[in-house]
Amino acid sequence: MRKKPTILSSRTVARSRLFHVEEVELEFSNGVNTRYERLVGSSRGAVLIVPVMDDGNVLLIREYAAGTHRYELALPKGRIEAGEDLLAAANREIMEEVGYGARELIHLTSLTIAPGYLSHTTHVVLARDLRPQRLDGDEPEDIEVVPWPLDRIEALSAQEDFTEARSIAALYLARERLAR
Amino acid sequence: MRKKPTILSSRTVARSRLFHVEEVELEFSNGVNTRYERLVGSSRGAVLIVPVMDDGNVLLIREYAAGTHRYELALPKGRIEAGEDLLAAANREIMEEVGYGARELIHLTSLTIAPGYLSHTTHVVLARDLRPQRLDGDEPEDIEVVPWPLDRIEALSAQEDFTEARSIAALYLARERLAR
Repeated sequence: MRKKPTILSSRTVARSRLFHVEEVELEFSNGVNTRYERLVGSSRGAVLIVPVMDDGNVLLIREYAAGTHRYELALPKGRIEAGEDLLAAANREIMEEVGYGARELIHLTSLTIAPGYLSHTTHVVLARDLRPQRLDGDEPEDIEVVPWPLDRIEALSAQEDFTEARSIAALYLARERLAR
Repeated sequence: MRKKPTILSSRTVARSRLFHVEEVELEFSNGVNTRYERLVGSSRGAVLIVPVMDDGNVLLIREYAAGTHRYELALPKGRIEAGEDLLAAANREIMEEVGYGARELIHLTSLTIAPGYLSHTTHVVLARDLRPQRLDGDEPEDIEVVPWPLDRIEALSAQEDFTEARSIAALYLARERLAR
C-alpha cells in the first residue's frame, strides 16, 4: 500500500448551518504539492436500512428530496444521533419512516458516497423480523411506503425516480447476504 | 404522484472555489413551510465508467481520496467538461485513468448520491472493446489500475478500501446488463 499524502495545513473556507468546507494542502509521497477542498461531515455518519418483511418484500419510501427537487424512491435512512448506537439508530429510523421495528438487525457494510470530496460514511443495516411499531419523525409531510419484492430489484432500475446509488448498492448486497 | 413543494425563495448562504450552498424556503402541498440547505452542483454532472476487458476483467483504480484521507478502490470517474458529450467524457476519462479507449460505450443509467442535499448526477457508462490508448490526466501521482473479474464482485465487498456506493451499484447493474 502506498504511503498516504501528508496534510501540511487545513483551513475552513466556507461554512453554513449544515455544511463545512475545508481546504487542505497536501504533499504526496512523490513530492507533488496540491490543494483540495472537501466537506467535513459528522463523524457519526448515517444509517441506511434494508427492511425485509417475512413475505420477501423490502420496504422502500418515496420522499421529497430538496437537492434534486423531485420525489425520490429509496431505502429509509437518517443520521445517527449523539450517543446512539448504529443499530439503535437504524431501528429508530424505520419506526419513524416505515412504521416497523425489527427484532433482527445486521450491520452489512459501510459505504462512502464521494470519497474524493466528502468524509461521510453510511452504515448499511439489514432489518428483519419486523413488527408494526411507529415513532413520530420530523418529516414535513407523510412518507409514502412502497413494498417491493427483493427478488425483482432488477426492475427497479427502470423506475425513473429510483436513482440513489447507496440504495441500489444496499439492495444488491442484502440480496446476496440473504441468498447465502 | 404528489404535487412537488413550491420553492418560495432561495439564497446563497456559503460559497467556496468548489462548493455553493443554497438555502431554499419551501411550501409543501399540505401547507407546511420549511427551509433546507442544499449544494448546487454542475448541471453537466459526472461520468462513472465500467471498463470491461475481453477476458471479463473490469478495470478498477486505487487513488487517494481527500474526503476520507485514504486510498480508495473504485471505478474510474470524472466530470463532464463544457461542450462534451457524456460518452466522449467517459472515453476520455478511461484513457486518462486506466490507459484504454473503448470502441463500444453504452449509457446504462444515471445515479444520484445524496438527493436530499445534492443535485449532482453521475452517468454510468459501460465501456467494452477496449484498446490501449493513453491520455495525460491531471492527477498528482500515478493511478494504480486493478483488474478484477466481473463474476467475482461479491468478493469486492470484503476489500476494506472498496466502499464507494456508486461503484458498487454500477458493477451490479453492468453485470446484469451483460448477462442479458
